[in-house]
Amino acid sequence: MESRRAESFSDGVFAVAITLLVIDLLPIGADTISSRQLTHALSGAWPQYAAYAVSFLTIGIMWLNHHTLLAHVTRVDRPLLALNLFLLMGVVAIPFPTALVAEHLTGDFRAGGSVAAVVYGLVMVAISVGYSGMWLYLEAHREKLGAPARTRSPGTASLRFSAGLAGYVVATLLAAFVSAAAALTLYGVIAVYYLFDHLPDPAAAQGDPAAVDDPADAESGLF
Amino acid sequence: MESRRAESFSDGVFAVAITLLVIDLLPIGADTISSRQLTHALSGAWPQYAAYAVSFLTIGIMWLNHHTLLAHVTRVDRPLLALNLFLLMGVVAIPFPTALVAEHLTGDFRAGGSVAAVVYGLVMVAISVGYSGMWLYLEAHREKLGAPARTRSPGTASLRFSAGLAGYVVATLLAAFVSAAAALTLYGVIAVYYLFDHLPDPAAAQGDPAAVDDPADAESGLF
Amino acid sequence: MESRRAESFSDGVFAVAITLLVIDLLPIGADTISSRQLTHALSGAWPQYAAYAVSFLTIGIMWLNHHTLLAHVTRVDRPLLALNLFLLMGVVAIPFPTALVAEHLTGDFRAGGSVAAVVYGLVMVAISVGYSGMWLYLEAHREKLGAPARTRSPGTASLRFSAGLAGYVVATLLAAFVSAAAALTLYGVIAVYYLFDHLPDPAAAQGDPAAVDDPADAESGLF
Amino acid sequence: MESRRAESFSDGVFAVAITLLVIDLLPIGADTISSRQLTHALSGAWPQYAAYAVSFLTIGIMWLNHHTLLAHVTRVDRPLLALNLFLLMGVVAIPFPTALVAEHLTGDFRAGGSVAAVVYGLVMVAISVGYSGMWLYLEAHREKLGAPARTRSPGTASLRFSAGLAGYVVATLLAAFVSAAAALTLYGVIAVYYLFDHLPDPAAAQGDPAAVDDPADAESGLF
Repeated sequence: MESRRAESFSDGVFAVAITLLVIDLLPIGADTISSRQLTHALSGAWPQYAAYAVSFLTIGIMWLNHHTLLAHVTRVDRPLLALNLFLLMGVVAIPFPTALVAEHLTGDFRAGGSVAAVVYGLVMVAISVGYSGMWLYLEAHREKLGAPARTRSPGTASLRFSAGLAGYVVATLLAAFVSAAAALTLYGVIAVYYLFDHLPDPAAAQGDPAAVDDPADAESGLF
Repeated sequence: MESRRAESFSDGVFAVAITLLVIDLLPIGADTISSRQLTHALSGAWPQYAAYAVSFLTIGIMWLNHHTLLAHVTRVDRPLLALNLFLLMGVVAIPFPTALVAEHLTGDFRAGGSVAAVVYGLVMVAISVGYSGMWLYLEAHREKLGAPARTRSPGTASLRFSAGLAGYVVATLLAAFVSAAAALTLYGVIAVYYLFDHLPDPAAAQGDPAAVDDPADAESGLF
Repeated sequence: MESRRAESFSDGVFAVAITLLVIDLLPIGADTISSRQLTHALSGAWPQYAAYAVSFLTIGIMWLNHHTLLAHVTRVDRPLLALNLFLLMGVVAIPFPTALVAEHLTGDFRAGGSVAAVVYGLVMVAISVGYSGMWLYLEAHREKLGAPARTRSPGTASLRFSAGLAGYVVATLLAAFVSAAAALTLYGVIAVYYLFDHLPDPAAAQGDPAAVDDPADAESGLF
Repeated sequence: MESRRAESFSDGVFAVAITLLVIDLLPIGADTISSRQLTHALSGAWPQYAAYAVSFLTIGIMWLNHHTLLAHVTRVDRPLLALNLFLLMGVVAIPFPTALVAEHLTGDFRAGGSVAAVVYGLVMVAISVGYSGMWLYLEAHREKLGAPARTRSPGTASLRFSAGLAGYVVATLLAAFVSAAAALTLYGVIAVYYLFDHLPDPAAAQGDPAAVDDPADAESGLF
């Protein structure tokens, strides 16, 4: 199967998953309260907005990196499609830990917030492992999958993967032993970091059009 | 990355966001009431239908303008993708203030309707700022993003942006100090205005096919 | 704007709208009942399944006809996009009357079923009017929209439109004055009729490949 | 109509259906419980996660096989589109039996779990019948639908269909008379089996790029 098709299906899944995050925001049964009460309820729901923003950025970055990853190849085979499905299974589940964190962040530390943030982190760690698995499979079957000649050492990319994975492990430990809010902040920082990571890319800065879409760019920017 | 890919992902997000508006319409626990009661409940839910129509038209117009904006360029870089993500974060959130307005519009002025319409307006202002940000970035990096030569002065477009942004600010102030229903009406008027704004485009009226899809058209019709 | 883009966005909206119908099927709070009770509850929910099937087929047919309609042109302008948005606003709303009918069909005639089926019919009538509006606009601006030369008389198509619209008006009257179940049956019959209506197409029967995708086919099969 | 269009619409439906599975995971009203209670509630909800994983893999495989099936032809006609709609009607409904199974799996055998797993199996059997119907229609109208010359005997494919259908019938009987959990496990095993079934494909193993996307591959891997 051509990689273009798997990419198009995955794009659809990413687009729906990122949009379903709004379901966590929808208010329920708030039609009888006064103006003051509504203002108070809305401002008290800040963990909902924070969790929405962090998960939105995270899924957005994951979509970017998914594109960069599949740009390495021209064909996909069954094992790669299977790895892709496991990866998407994690991405689609993100609204679930997002809702958990939104519901439990305002309670005090022992009342569920920590557990919720740990679940959030574990889903992120699982997705990072999925990305690493896809990358390792791609590296091991470059020829069969129609990948172009390598332009950089794969070591850099592997280092990146380890860094992303390590970041989520640290944030999960932070959630378990220190603070749920601090962990959520770190989740957001990781997303923003990966979002802007491509900026100093030398080829793009020189205005070389081909370089912007260069598959080798996947070495930077992957989880 | 080619702009076509970012556009395709954004299209998916717009399509899902506009369709999720129906969730605000779905009735809950209405299976025991009589024919007369159901008719009364349905006609009493007119703010739901009004909010649905206004938000549907608004997201539809935003999709149109998003296309026109990205038609300016052939490539996207990381800062533009980041701006695009922030813009989509606002668009995806629209069902939330829509539900708020639908729930609170029928109560009297002090009972939440005003607060809900202000929240709706603030989301629109944020999205307008996002469009302006993308436009300013595009203008400042035309060459790097593969934009064609300019055919009109950018001043007109900037004026348009200011007008759209100002419209939403005025409507938000209307919601805060005068009437939630009047503000919702103005939100709808702004959407319909931008929907039909392209009509007197001289090139299209002359039947010139190329002109209809001309990127320079983005100067009219943007928020 | 090229018609291909508007078609791609509309396809996404149709795909999400048809899939959201499953939300009406999701069970709520049924985790404590026995095997016998669950069987009874599931078989008692047959109006849900009937409404789901009728609406699924209806949206599916509407997607087909939307494609055939836009195959008439190569470009779209702002008024056509506005008509398209109004049409999609009706299609996206379909899960709402579907849920109404599912909830009220089992009650006796006076207890809401009739009102729900009338609302369902009114939405269908509105969508039929939308299709007719798009068709009339397309016919009146063929040259500007890049339509190919006409191969059949537009009279046949207009007759078809009237027939589809009349069918929904009759079904709505049936819902108002006779029986909600009979009306739902007629809604389903109309969908199935339009689904199979292309079968006796002479060109396709002769195995002429081009004829199958011939824009002129829009004359049969439109609401 | 070109098969590409029907495929693109179907892809959208599959992408939304697989993503809507997350709705079954979203927690409700869990904002007041302690850390210990939340941990207990989350670990007690394992049937939700199991049902989510099985249905996710199943829809993913069905998407793959749908692609392979439509790769047989270059055109689609009305009867094939009708069969496709009936097939999608089953796929879109999958979140419904998934939620049923998730809700009822933890109760003891007589308390609904068996009924839920039977409903799940019946939906799968209906979808398998739909795939068989599409395959038989494709085989009977190869020329009209623009299918390339056959490279393998259709007998192998028919055998595959029977095997997949038989697997779901056996699992449904298992659900009815033995154990709901055992049936869910078998549903998962069937999905994983079809996911990896293409691996020993000889052409792909020889590195022949064309063979990977060969329509004749549909003979293996279909339900």
